[in-house]
Amino acid sequence: MLQVPHSSIGALVARRRPGYGLEQPFFLSQEIFDLDMEVIFGRHWIFIGVEADVPQPGDTMVVDVGRTTVLVLRDEAGTVRAVNNVCRHRGARLVHDYKASVGNLVCRYHQWTYGLDGALQYAEHMGEGFDKSCLGLKPVHLKSLEGLLFVCLSEDPPADFDTMAEAMRPYIAPHGVRDTKVAFEMDIIEPGNWKITMENNRECYHCSVNHPELTVPLFAYGFGFAPEQLDETGKLQADRYACLLDANHADWEAKGFPSRTIEHLDDVVTGYRTQRLPLDGAGESHTLSTEVACRKLLGGQTERKLGGLHFWTQPNSWHHFMSDHAVVFSVLPLDPEHSLLRTKWLVHKDAVEGVDYDIQKLTEVWVATNAQDSELVGYQHSGVSSPAYEPGPYSPYTEGLVDKFANWYLGRIAEHLER
Amino acid sequence: MLQVPHSSIGALVARRRPGYGLEQPFFLSQEIFDLDMEVIFGRHWIFIGVEADVPQPGDTMVVDVGRTTVLVLRDEAGTVRAVNNVCRHRGARLVHDYKASVGNLVCRYHQWTYGLDGALQYAEHMGEGFDKSCLGLKPVHLKSLEGLLFVCLSEDPPADFDTMAEAMRPYIAPHGVRDTKVAFEMDIIEPGNWKITMENNRECYHCSVNHPELTVPLFAYGFGFAPEQLDETGKLQADRYACLLDANHADWEAKGFPSRTIEHLDDVVTGYRTQRLPLDGAGESHTLSTEVACRKLLGGQTERKLGGLHFWTQPNSWHHFMSDHAVVFSVLPLDPEHSLLRTKWLVHKDAVEGVDYDIQKLTEVWVATNAQDSELVGYQHSGVSSPAYEPGPYSPYTEGLVDKFANWYLGRIAEHLER
Amino acid sequence: MLQVPHSSIGALVARRRPGYGLEQPFFLSQEIFDLDMEVIFGRHWIFIGVEADVPQPGDTMVVDVGRTTVLVLRDEAGTVRAVNNVCRHRGARLVHDYKASVGNLVCRYHQWTYGLDGALQYAEHMGEGFDKSCLGLKPVHLKSLEGLLFVCLSEDPPADFDTMAEAMRPYIAPHGVRDTKVAFEMDIIEPGNWKITMENNRECYHCSVNHPELTVPLFAYGFGFAPEQLDETGKLQADRYACLLDANHADWEAKGFPSRTIEHLDDVVTGYRTQRLPLDGAGESHTLSTEVACRKLLGGQTERKLGGLHFWTQPNSWHHFMSDHAVVFSVLPLDPEHSLLRTKWLVHKDAVEGVDYDIQKLTEVWVATNAQDSELVGYQHSGVSSPAYEPGPYSPYTEGLVDKFANWYLGRIAEHLER
Repeated sequence: MLQVPHSSIGALVARRRPGYGLEQPFFLSQEIFDLDMEVIFGRHWIFIGVEADVPQPGDTMVVDVGRTTVLVLRDEAGTVRAVNNVCRHRGARLVHDYKASVGNLVCRYHQWTYGLDGALQYAEHMGEGFDKSCLGLKPVHLKSLEGLLFVCLSEDPPADFDTMAEAMRPYIAPHGVRDTKVAFEMDIIEPGNWKITMENNRECYHCSVNHPELTVPLFAYGFGFAPEQLDETGKLQADRYACLLDANHADWEAKGFPSRTIEHLDDVVTGYRTQRLPLDGAGESHTLSTEVACRKLLGGQTERKLGGLHFWTQPNSWHHFMSDHAVVFSVLPLDPEHSLLRTKWLVHKDAVEGVDYDIQKLTEVWVATNAQDSELVGYQHSGVSSPAYEPGPYSPYTEGLVDKFANWYLGRIAEHLER
Repeated sequence: MLQVPHSSIGALVARRRPGYGLEQPFFLSQEIFDLDMEVIFGRHWIFIGVEADVPQPGDTMVVDVGRTTVLVLRDEAGTVRAVNNVCRHRGARLVHDYKASVGNLVCRYHQWTYGLDGALQYAEHMGEGFDKSCLGLKPVHLKSLEGLLFVCLSEDPPADFDTMAEAMRPYIAPHGVRDTKVAFEMDIIEPGNWKITMENNRECYHCSVNHPELTVPLFAYGFGFAPEQLDETGKLQADRYACLLDANHADWEAKGFPSRTIEHLDDVVTGYRTQRLPLDGAGESHTLSTEVACRKLLGGQTERKLGGLHFWTQPNSWHHFMSDHAVVFSVLPLDPEHSLLRTKWLVHKDAVEGVDYDIQKLTEVWVATNAQDSELVGYQHSGVSSPAYEPGPYSPYTEGLVDKFANWYLGRIAEHLER
Repeated sequence: MLQVPHSSIGALVARRRPGYGLEQPFFLSQEIFDLDMEVIFGRHWIFIGVEADVPQPGDTMVVDVGRTTVLVLRDEAGTVRAVNNVCRHRGARLVHDYKASVGNLVCRYHQWTYGLDGALQYAEHMGEGFDKSCLGLKPVHLKSLEGLLFVCLSEDPPADFDTMAEAMRPYIAPHGVRDTKVAFEMDIIEPGNWKITMENNRECYHCSVNHPELTVPLFAYGFGFAPEQLDETGKLQADRYACLLDANHADWEAKGFPSRTIEHLDDVVTGYRTQRLPLDGAGESHTLSTEVACRKLLGGQTERKLGGLHFWTQPNSWHHFMSDHAVVFSVLPLDPEHSLLRTKWLVHKDAVEGVDYDIQKLTEVWVATNAQDSELVGYQHSGVSSPAYEPGPYSPYTEGLVDKFANWYLGRIAEHLER
C-alpha cells in the first residue's frame, strides 16, 4: 500500500514531533509492519492469556503471534509451558484447535509423537540410526505473572520482566488470578493498525461521548482533563473524583491492597503502568449496576469495594481486576490494517454460572465498549490513510499516556535501527 | 502482481506503437497504478458529482479518490466547498455516511468541532495556549461547471479548466444542471483497470452487438465506421445518420443550442470533447421509447427533441444531457484491477417521481448498458493479464478517440517523468 | 509476505540439506512463486486434461496456467490444438466458459472472428489495408500422450517429452484413454503452496491413518516402509504385498500389460515415474468394494484385475489407470498459498451412467482422499509459515520420492539461475 524503504524508517523515527501523533507510514506501511512484528512482537514480552486457559495437565491453547504459532500447555507436573506449534518432520501445524486436551502431541500428518515436555517420543519409518534427541518441539520463553501468561519469541528476552513482576505481584496477588476460570472470551478483528488500537486504549478523552456503558462505573476524568475548560458540572465531577481517589487509596493501602500509581510506560524495555481506580456508584465492579457481577469473590476476599486495578503493558495488553472478576485484553497484529483484540472475563474457579454470576451482566460493559472502540479504531485507520493526514497534537491533559506509548514504540524501533 | 521498476516506466511510455493499445503493465502493475493515482488522479480535475448532491446548506457528500477522502459540502452561504475529510487531531475520518446533513462537523472520536467553512471551532482538553487557527480542515480545490463538480487534489491545479469551462458553458447551460435533483444513482465495481473502463467508453465499435438497449436511441455509427466495409443496410444507416446530423445541427444551432463538435482530447491538460448527437426514433432521450422519460423538462425548456449532448473529460468522466434528464458518470480507480463506476440520473428538481417520471423508464437504458460494459471490461482485463497479450491495432475508423485517450494518458505520464 | 531478493534464491538452492525438506521461502515467497511460474510452469510440460475434454470438432476447454489462459480445442480435422485465449485486437479473453462448443471463435467485444485453426478470419471497421495474416491467435505447444494432454508455454519445449511418451505408451495404451469420456470432474482449491500438494502426493507415509477409504484398495506399504520397525501385523502385510507384487507383475507382463517400475523423477527434464500396483481385496479398482465401478471396461479389455497403473509427471500430475476407469489429477498453482487440484474420472465413452456405472461408487474413494489431503496440505502450509519452521528429515524408507521431487524442482531452478 505504501512503500517505505527500510533505510528511511530511521529518518521517520528521528523527525517525530514530540507530543504529536505518528506519521502515516507507521500505520500503513508493510515494511514497518514487518519491522513491528520482528522487533516489537518478536523481542518483547507479549501477553497472550492466563493459566486458567489450560487448567489441567494436558490442556493446550494455540496462540498465533504474527506468523509464529505458539502452543501453550500444562505439563504433567502442572507447569505451564510454551513450544512452537510446528512438527519437526515436514513442518505441519501440530495442534489445530484453539483449546484442546491431549495425552501427548501427535502430528496429524505422519503421527510423529511428542511428550508434553516437547520431546520427540516416536516417529515411524525413520530407520534405525534416527536420532530423536534433537528433534523436540522448539521451546518458547514463557513467564507467568501471578497467572498472567507472557511469551517472548526471542532467544534473548528482556530481563526487566522480573522487575515489573516484582512490583506488580502485590497489586495482583489479592485477586487470585491463578484460582480463576475463563467465564467468557471474545475475539474482535479491529479494522486498524495495532498501534491505533493501543492508542485508543491509552486515553479516556473519547470515553464520555462514546462509552455510555463504561462510564457508568469508570470516571471519564480518571485519566486527566483540562481544568481551565471545565464547566460547573465538570468541576464538581473532577472534585468528587479527586476526593474519592485520596480517600480510597488511603483506605485500600491500609487494608493491604496496593493502589498508588506505578508508571514506567516509556522509560524501560518492559513498559507498564498500574493504579487502583475508584469506581462510581456502588464502587464495586465494571458492571452497569456498579455492583459485583459474581457473588463468589476473587482470591477469597470478602471486601467487594476494591475499585478497579488497572495494569497496562507495552506493547499489547491491558487488564482490569475487580473484587469479583477480572477482564484481560491482548492485542495481536494481523496485518497493517487489522488487529485481533482478544478479551477474557475471569471469575473464581468455583463460581457457578447461573448461580454465582450471569454472563450477560458480567460481560455487557466491555462487550459494548469493545464494539465502540473497534468502530473508532476503524475511523482513525481510515482517516490516517489519506495523503492529507498530518499528525495532530495530543492533549497535554488527556493524552499523555498515548504520547508515552508512541515514545516507547519509537524508542524500541530506534534502538533496533541503531544496532 | 507484476513489478515494474519505476525507472523503466519511461521506457514503456516511449516505446508505445502509435495506434495500438497500451502494454500490459499499464493495466496490471501496482507501481503504475500508484503513479496513476499520484499524477493523473492527484493532479488533474476529477469529476466527482453534482451540486444537486448537496442541495441545502449543511448537506455533505463523501467521495474517496484513491486514499484521499474528500468531503463536499454546501456552506451556510450556499457555496459548495470541498475539504479533506480527516480530523486534524488524531486523523479520524470525520464524516462516515456517503450523504448526510449536519449543523457543523463534529469528529466522532474526541468531538473536535469544525464549522462548514472548515475552521476548527472547539476542541476540549487542549489547554489554554492551544492555537486552533492552524488546525482547520485542509481545503480541496473545487470547481463547479454549471453544477458539475470537479476537484483537484493538487496544490497547483491545471489552469486550463477555465478554458474548457468557458467553451462548455453555452452547451450545458440550457440543461439547467444547477436546478436538478439526483433521481437515482448507482455504483458498480468494474473488474478491471480504470483505463480499460475509460477505453470502453471512448468507442462505440462494441455497441451494435453488446448494447441492444443503448442502440435504440443511440446510433452505433455516430462514432465512426469503415465506409468500404459497410453492407447495404449499413450504408443506408450511415447515410441516414449523416443527413440527420446535418439537419439537426443546423436546426439546434439556429435555436441557440450549441451542437458542433469541440475536441481537445489529447492536446491540452484538461482534455475534453463535446458534441450534440441526434437520437433515433422520436429523437428525444436515452430511453427505450426514445421519448422523454420526464415530463418536466430541464432548464425550463419546451423543446423535447434536443438530442443527446455528450461531454467527456479526461481522465474520468462522461455525461449525456437530454431535454428531460441527464446522466453523468465518474470513474474512480480502486486498485489496478477494480474501478468504481458511479452513475447519477438527474431530472428537474421540481419533477415528482411517479407523476412526472418513472425510475424504471428513466434508468433502464444505462442500467443495462453499464452492466454490459462492466462485463466487457472484465473480459479485457482478464485477457490482457496473460503473458501472451500483445497490444493490437485500434480501428482507424471507430477507435480514434480511444487512441486519443491513450495519447493523453501517456503524455501526462511522460510530462511527469521528464520533470 | 516474505521477501527474498532474486539474487539470494541461488544461495537458498545451493545450501539445501540433502534428504531434508525445502526451506520456508520456497513455500511462502512471492518472488519464488513468480520464478516457479516462469521457470517450472512456463517452460515444462504441464498436464492439463484429456482429449475426452473436447470430444467433438468445435469443442473447447479453457485452462488457466498462472496468468496464461489457454484455449484447448478440437479442430475440424479432429486434431486437438491449443492457442492463447486472448483476442489480438484489444486483448479481451476470447472464450469464457470452461467448456463450450463453437463454430468459430468470435470475440465478444468487437466480434473479431477466428477459425478453429486460430487464423483471424474477419474484423469489422479495420479498413482496406488491414493485414489479418499476422493477427491469428498465438499457438501453444500441445502434446497428446495416448489422450493425456500436456502443454508447454515456452517457445522451446523440452525435447525429452518424446522419450517419456515412447516409454509410457505401452503402459497406457491398453487403457484406451482416447476412447473415454469424462464421467465426473472436481476442482478443489487447496490451502497451500503447489509444492506442498505435490509432496503430499509423492508419499504414502500419511496414508494408513489419514486415508481410510484409499487404503481399502491401495496398500499403504506399496511405497515403502522401515522394515526393522514393523510389528507382527506389519510384517505379515509387508510380506503379503511383496508376494502379490511379484506374482502379479509376472502375470501381467506375460499377458502383455507392462508393469515394472520406470523411474526418472529427478534425472531428466521431463521427470516421471510409473509402476503397475497390485490392489487389495478383489484387486480390481480404486473403489470401496475393490471391484470395478464400471461394467464396460476400458480399451475393450476383458480382464478386470489389472491393478492400478500409476503414472506421475513432474511438476504437476498423477494418474491411476485401472481396468474399468482412470483418475487423472493436475495441480495448477494459484498463488504462493493456494493451488487448484483438478481431478477427472474417465470411463469408456460408451458406458452409460446408471447402467454401466454409478457416479457415487466410481468417485467416492478419491473424493474422500482429496478432501483429506487438502486438509493435510493446509496443516503443512500453516506450520511452515512459522519463523520457527526448519526443514526436517525425510524418511529414507517412505519419502524417497518426495526427496526426488525436491531434487527435480531445485535442479530445474538451479539450471535456470546458472544460465
